Amino acid sequence: MLMQRIYTSQLEKYVGKEVLISGWCHDVRLLGGINFILLRDKEGIAQVKVEKKSSPREILDLVEKIHQEDVLVIKGKVVRSKVAKAAVEVVPSKIEVVSKAEVPLPLDPRNVTPANLDTRLEWKFIDLRKPESILIYKIGTAIEMAMRKFWIKNGFIEIHSPKLMGSPSETGAELFSVPYFGRTAYLAQSPQFYKQMAMAAGFEKVFEIGQVFRANPSETTRHDTEFTSIDMEMSWIDSHEDVMKFEERWLSYVLKSIKKNFGSEIKENFGVEVIVPKIPFPRVTMQEAHEITGCKPVETRNFSDLDSEGEKMLCKYVLENKKHEFVFIKDFPWRVRPFYHMKLEDDPTKTKSFDLLWKGLEITTGAQREHRYNVLVEQAKEKGIKLDNIKFYLDFFKYGCPPHGGFGFGQTRFLMQLLGFKNVREVTFAPRDMKRLFP
Amino acid sequence: MLMQRIYTSQLEKYVGKEVLISGWCHDVRLLGGINFILLRDKEGIAQVKVEKKSSPREILDLVEKIHQEDVLVIKGKVVRSKVAKAAVEVVPSKIEVVSKAEVPLPLDPRNVTPANLDTRLEWKFIDLRKPESILIYKIGTAIEMAMRKFWIKNGFIEIHSPKLMGSPSETGAELFSVPYFGRTAYLAQSPQFYKQMAMAAGFEKVFEIGQVFRANPSETTRHDTEFTSIDMEMSWIDSHEDVMKFEERWLSYVLKSIKKNFGSEIKENFGVEVIVPKIPFPRVTMQEAHEITGCKPVETRNFSDLDSEGEKMLCKYVLENKKHEFVFIKDFPWRVRPFYHMKLEDDPTKTKSFDLLWKGLEITTGAQREHRYNVLVEQAKEKGIKLDNIKFYLDFFKYGCPPHGGFGFGQTRFLMQLLGFKNVREVTFAPRDMKRLFP
Repeated sequence: MLMQRIYTSQLEKYVGKEVLISGWCHDVRLLGGINFILLRDKEGIAQVKVEKKSSPREILDLVEKIHQEDVLVIKGKVVRSKVAKAAVEVVPSKIEVVSKAEVPLPLDPRNVTPANLDTRLEWKFIDLRKPESILIYKIGTAIEMAMRKFWIKNGFIEIHSPKLMGSPSETGAELFSVPYFGRTAYLAQSPQFYKQMAMAAGFEKVFEIGQVFRANPSETTRHDTEFTSIDMEMSWIDSHEDVMKFEERWLSYVLKSIKKNFGSEIKENFGVEVIVPKIPFPRVTMQEAHEITGCKPVETRNFSDLDSEGEKMLCKYVLENKKHEFVFIKDFPWRVRPFYHMKLEDDPTKTKSFDLLWKGLEITTGAQREHRYNVLVEQAKEKGIKLDNIKFYLDFFKYGCPPHGGFGFGQTRFLMQLLGFKNVREVTFAPRDMKRLFP
Repeated sequence: MLMQRIYTSQLEKYVGKEVLISGWCHDVRLLGGINFILLRDKEGIAQVKVEKKSSPREILDLVEKIHQEDVLVIKGKVVRSKVAKAAVEVVPSKIEVVSKAEVPLPLDPRNVTPANLDTRLEWKFIDLRKPESILIYKIGTAIEMAMRKFWIKNGFIEIHSPKLMGSPSETGAELFSVPYFGRTAYLAQSPQFYKQMAMAAGFEKVFEIGQVFRANPSETTRHDTEFTSIDMEMSWIDSHEDVMKFEERWLSYVLKSIKKNFGSEIKENFGVEVIVPKIPFPRVTMQEAHEITGCKPVETRNFSDLDSEGEKMLCKYVLENKKHEFVFIKDFPWRVRPFYHMKLEDDPTKTKSFDLLWKGLEITTGAQREHRYNVLVEQAKEKGIKLDNIKFYLDFFKYGCPPHGGFGFGQTRFLMQLLGFKNVREVTFAPRDMKRLFP
């Protein structure tokens, strides 16, 4: 390929010129006198026109043999379309079939007859070929870049904490174990203990974006057995309020950047208006949340205290009354939070903790952590945790540790809410659940 | 804390003013008439001066009780030092002990008497408190940010591939297995198959930075059982040469950015001069590498074909003769490369593959991949791989796949070579090996 390949989205700049384009045959339309190939690359779709009267024999023969999803390299001239003046087409002088697609396809990426989710997940690499699918991951890339930029501007350090742990990171429930040279290792359910290790090490502010694992035996639209967790932790806070203040500035920055760079594409492809949230986000205590929703408290696996119906009701209320898509719920009862959350000074039945809900779904759990060794040990005992199992963690607080807090944030949940999907699997590259280990 | 806390590195700007600083007591020197506390935060160390004649009683009493590694908040006035005019000191009006350190410390972060590596790894969170340790992770953060910036500028998409796999990702050796709802899952040894899935899905250019796992039963200075792998893959290449061309531009960009932002700190703390490498990097074939070094080929676990002594010899030769720290070895024999590496058209005993060595160590393995379904199946058979095990992977190539290639890059190996360390554990946040699962 001596010529420089261009993307289909760049054709407009090359009217009257020879170009090289390449990608998948999105569709082929053989109309006799005039044939069309739609060529798809990661930036869009180009129309390639093969007229019977003016095309060389070898191209006409080839076009008849081309199937949907064959991979092609096409050399040709860019011309204005006679039908729609605004559009451009490519008149090929050479077509090369680089890779043939087997017939029939197990899934049609043109999405003409939408397939069921199971089939789409089984053939995920074909499902991802849909232009709006690739867009999801472009947006995901931009989201993480914006997050990192904001963190780094604010002096944060990136860590990669180990996913193989010597003892469970959280409760011991929903844990994957791994035979490890005659011992047992456990897959990290969160980087919680290691973010706190960084605080004890004097890193002061850290973030991590990485995979975590939960042996969740149920199949909901919101849970995977493996997912990408976005985590941060910061020292020298006065309370969980400082963590919430950081999170709302950070999220506002991220959504501003996404609106600027992808706002119109998101509107066009997913029908969702990106709104840059105003600061401060509304805050309610857990108690107020119960009063507003009339929902009774429930105990759930992720230490939340509203069920998913309650989360939706609260967000609806806040949107109507405060005109805000986000809402912090704070001061969760001690009995539904993990042992390392700090208790409120003036009411030890409650914790310096919070969740953040967006459009009816919890996307964050955060808190100030208990950094005082003796208090932490008491709280662990109170929750019935075997101290031996967490000795390495308790040690972090024995040799001087500043006050600190942070949050965990679900990457796919955020993407799902941003783009209006109903299932995290729609925005996960290769989802994992109880039944699914392939592809 | 009503006053805004500042870092110790900012004191110079506050001479004559009241400030609030906080961190660890790095050292305390009680000299009778005049006492000093060295306060350490993530940006540096400040000298706090407590004179007997001018200090309030409660501060004098407190200073006597302060131990190394206690966590302190200090309010005081910034003054010029009488001894060294260039230096500034803080004269405290208030000292608060936020967190006491147990005595004795298991490890001294002042590094006065260097401890052995085992002790340092056992008490990693204290070892990380050394100012030069935190610097390693600041540099690591900047390296990854520079990498991502270059990728994103070049249209790459970030992916998070699953680490739980239904079948082994590579050879089946050194594999961790995980009981998974009555089945067996395997921990990913690399994102190889999933980067290629992204190519089959039309993403065209992807990168991933994430944890990978190898059940390596040996203890070398270069191998962990879990490490951070930096990976990229790109479509529409003509050969492995295109991948090498991308990698050298990318690395040159990264090292330029690191030299600019951390060059003098790296020189000062680690005694290493950062050199921005000239493009193109030198290239030798595997055959030439053998001729230059006189080393006989060996087969090693990571498909390299020079032993570590040979790698050092070759780099020494290239540095002396080509004045370059980097060297690509290319065209590795087919028998030492994995089944998915493409063979050379004109010599099928060799592959379109490469390694990149830096200062005597392999930091990259890359190749053009075989994207032709039938050829790939034949190559898998030739290597004795059970096709059933990799069916999901082979499917990626059945429905149209463009030519593509990429590389894997060791994050800690790069940091180790950049800073002149001799062991990856020195630059890993919480290393994992056969013996080590804590902290």
